[in-house]
Amino acid sequence: MGGAPVMSTAIQARPALSNERDTRFCEDLFTALRSATGDGIGITRESFGAGESVALDLIEKAARELDLATERDAGANLVVTFAGTEPELPYLACGSHLDSVPQGGNFDGGAGVIAALAVLGGLKRDGFRPRRTLKLFGLRGEESAWFGKAYMGSSALFGRLTADDLASRHAVTGRSLADCMRSVGADMDRIARGEPLLDARRVAAWLELHIEQGPVLVARELPIAIVTGIRGNVRHRVVRCVGEAGHSGAVPRWLRRDAVFGVAELITHLDRHWRTLLERGRDLVVTSGVMGTDSSEHAIARIPGTVNFSFEARSQSQETLEAFYDLFVSECASIEEERGVEFQLDRRLQSAPAIMDPAWVEKLRTAARKLGLPDEPIPSGAGHDAAVFANAGIPSAMIFIRNEHGSHNPREDMAIADFMAGVAVMRDVLAEAAS
Amino acid sequence: MGGAPVMSTAIQARPALSNERDTRFCEDLFTALRSATGDGIGITRESFGAGESVALDLIEKAARELDLATERDAGANLVVTFAGTEPELPYLACGSHLDSVPQGGNFDGGAGVIAALAVLGGLKRDGFRPRRTLKLFGLRGEESAWFGKAYMGSSALFGRLTADDLASRHAVTGRSLADCMRSVGADMDRIARGEPLLDARRVAAWLELHIEQGPVLVARELPIAIVTGIRGNVRHRVVRCVGEAGHSGAVPRWLRRDAVFGVAELITHLDRHWRTLLERGRDLVVTSGVMGTDSSEHAIARIPGTVNFSFEARSQSQETLEAFYDLFVSECASIEEERGVEFQLDRRLQSAPAIMDPAWVEKLRTAARKLGLPDEPIPSGAGHDAAVFANAGIPSAMIFIRNEHGSHNPREDMAIADFMAGVAVMRDVLAEAAS
Repeated sequence: MGGAPVMSTAIQARPALSNERDTRFCEDLFTALRSATGDGIGITRESFGAGESVALDLIEKAARELDLATERDAGANLVVTFAGTEPELPYLACGSHLDSVPQGGNFDGGAGVIAALAVLGGLKRDGFRPRRTLKLFGLRGEESAWFGKAYMGSSALFGRLTADDLASRHAVTGRSLADCMRSVGADMDRIARGEPLLDARRVAAWLELHIEQGPVLVARELPIAIVTGIRGNVRHRVVRCVGEAGHSGAVPRWLRRDAVFGVAELITHLDRHWRTLLERGRDLVVTSGVMGTDSSEHAIARIPGTVNFSFEARSQSQETLEAFYDLFVSECASIEEERGVEFQLDRRLQSAPAIMDPAWVEKLRTAARKLGLPDEPIPSGAGHDAAVFANAGIPSAMIFIRNEHGSHNPREDMAIADFMAGVAVMRDVLAEAAS
Repeated sequence: MGGAPVMSTAIQARPALSNERDTRFCEDLFTALRSATGDGIGITRESFGAGESVALDLIEKAARELDLATERDAGANLVVTFAGTEPELPYLACGSHLDSVPQGGNFDGGAGVIAALAVLGGLKRDGFRPRRTLKLFGLRGEESAWFGKAYMGSSALFGRLTADDLASRHAVTGRSLADCMRSVGADMDRIARGEPLLDARRVAAWLELHIEQGPVLVARELPIAIVTGIRGNVRHRVVRCVGEAGHSGAVPRWLRRDAVFGVAELITHLDRHWRTLLERGRDLVVTSGVMGTDSSEHAIARIPGTVNFSFEARSQSQETLEAFYDLFVSECASIEEERGVEFQLDRRLQSAPAIMDPAWVEKLRTAARKLGLPDEPIPSGAGHDAAVFANAGIPSAMIFIRNEHGSHNPREDMAIADFMAGVAVMRDVLAEAAS
């Protein structure tokens, strides 16, 4: 890893994918967004806060300059409309979110909004007359960094913010989510009642372009990919392995109840199951991101009596998640038996996978092929607003753009050529669907 | 584990092992020691500090009441002498240490000193006239809890405290070890010069009785055991496994460099090697007492980029330590290769194993059998002053007494009947060797 982004020469040699004018429009908009919301290290666009509002204003101004209609919806999101000739037809929605984590990158979220604006603006400029209306959503509040909760803006659209969600406290200021949403203009009476702010039946599809937050496209030298599904997960925040502390020199192996050895064996067995499931073609990633002995009692010369660790499995398939979770529980039981330790599991947390609409995935793959681009289908490991749209019953699909160094940091690195390739795919699909 | 100590009915049914008078003498001395050095939670007898000095005074007073000669040596240790009829012969030394960890237990160290006094006092009272002189050492400064360094008192006897050792700072007060030793009366000029305070050639043997600090004797229902050797160790305080952090959902298995999975595999492989070595009859224990992901960057949804852990192997055999250490290094290399992680090892620390003298081990085992006691040979996992005597060339041996709940805590639990069985063995062996 590391070093400069891998550029696909195939793409660079294909200028037909974008014209200079569109490319400059997008580059200028990225630059403007970066300047307006820079924090000295990265960019900061706080959910339902100042930086996010600046970003919405900036995109809205650019949309008006393209002669597109703009408004704010009841959730205080930006909506840009390119009206169709048959407005009674369900409309095509596209976009992404405009908030960021603290000291984040310019492309996570922003790329999807700028792509949607480039598509709507380009079609309009080129004299395209859509039958179906096209709508761009510049969503607020996707990042969980500020209130602990993700997808706040899109969840509000479908009446899915609970009272607990709305009472969530801002990580820095301690203000409630409801307060912060109200202060940017959201209709908190409707949102608190759980009233949908849009009618899902009126939305024909949701298309979202997003940088990939993992390294797969870089490793496989693919400029773009088509997302097949968004992984759900099953988690335990803290699993506690309890053994028995003791003098590290004075207790022989057969009398030990060593929590570190118990957890190490568990992870190693889970790794083996993971490999087997991958070989069988299942989609799965497994992580124990937080692990440690107890600093109030551990010592080099002391058998560790307890280890706390987090457990997370993610898959596009609920069935795979359940199968792997069963293996996890059964491995815990067998190691308890063998090693005299005990695994204490806290509350199981989960979020359902979201399947991208197969017909829309196929439309995107076909458009990519027609443009001479790879049409690789890949799962999204990270969560996206598209999961909320999909789980609200709206056919949804996503385009991933190659990006180095992951996301949620200022080092994210997307080449404009890759981005414009994704824009071209989106434009072709939306134009056809709107005709 | 837990519950009341397992009492061997075989021992309880054999009153000949001790008389009521000796038992009461020892019980009273344990009680006095506990009262004089209690701290409200456990007992505290600070190395080269107040509690330790109180303990030395108390044992010295009891020795004088038994009509035994007492003195303080140049290391400020208590020496009790039962003069032999042929004082030019090398003398027999016995005893243990009188310091403790903070909030420790009454028996760790104290039991060996009281046992030695009961033997010398009992022999004298019974009119025994030794040919060889018998000397009891009430040693100072065995516990590493106060200055980071263990065996300070016995090391001083053999001129083995370095300038670095003497500059070690007290964990609480920050005073140097040299200062604290001087303040209890040690001859710091001689000690700083590395001058031996006793002539090892003048010592025929060192015998030390000590509570077992592990659970083996309880688990095997043995009241006592004979120590064959004291394990040495090889350690790394901090091994750092460096992988690459990343989004837990967005990086597939083949692109991961997960530090937790790397360390888990290492521990699991080491466990397999450990079992194999045990099956081949090698003596070994392996511990990773401190382990954790980096709290400044870890998160449930983040692939762990680094894990720090401690490594410790202990064995009676230097060859086994080296063989296992080689396996450790080679497993690190193979996991680095396979998983794209890197293991960064800090300075290798080690202490040499000490072999108990085979002839003295046999004397103790024979005496145990004659008394109808089990003669089980076992290794000592914990370190003891006997290791310093042995490595100074003095034939050394130890008797372990069954003890529940380990040591270094107020819950240590030794039955007086087990203790008196150990005293009986020691008495028989010393009486025979002194004749």
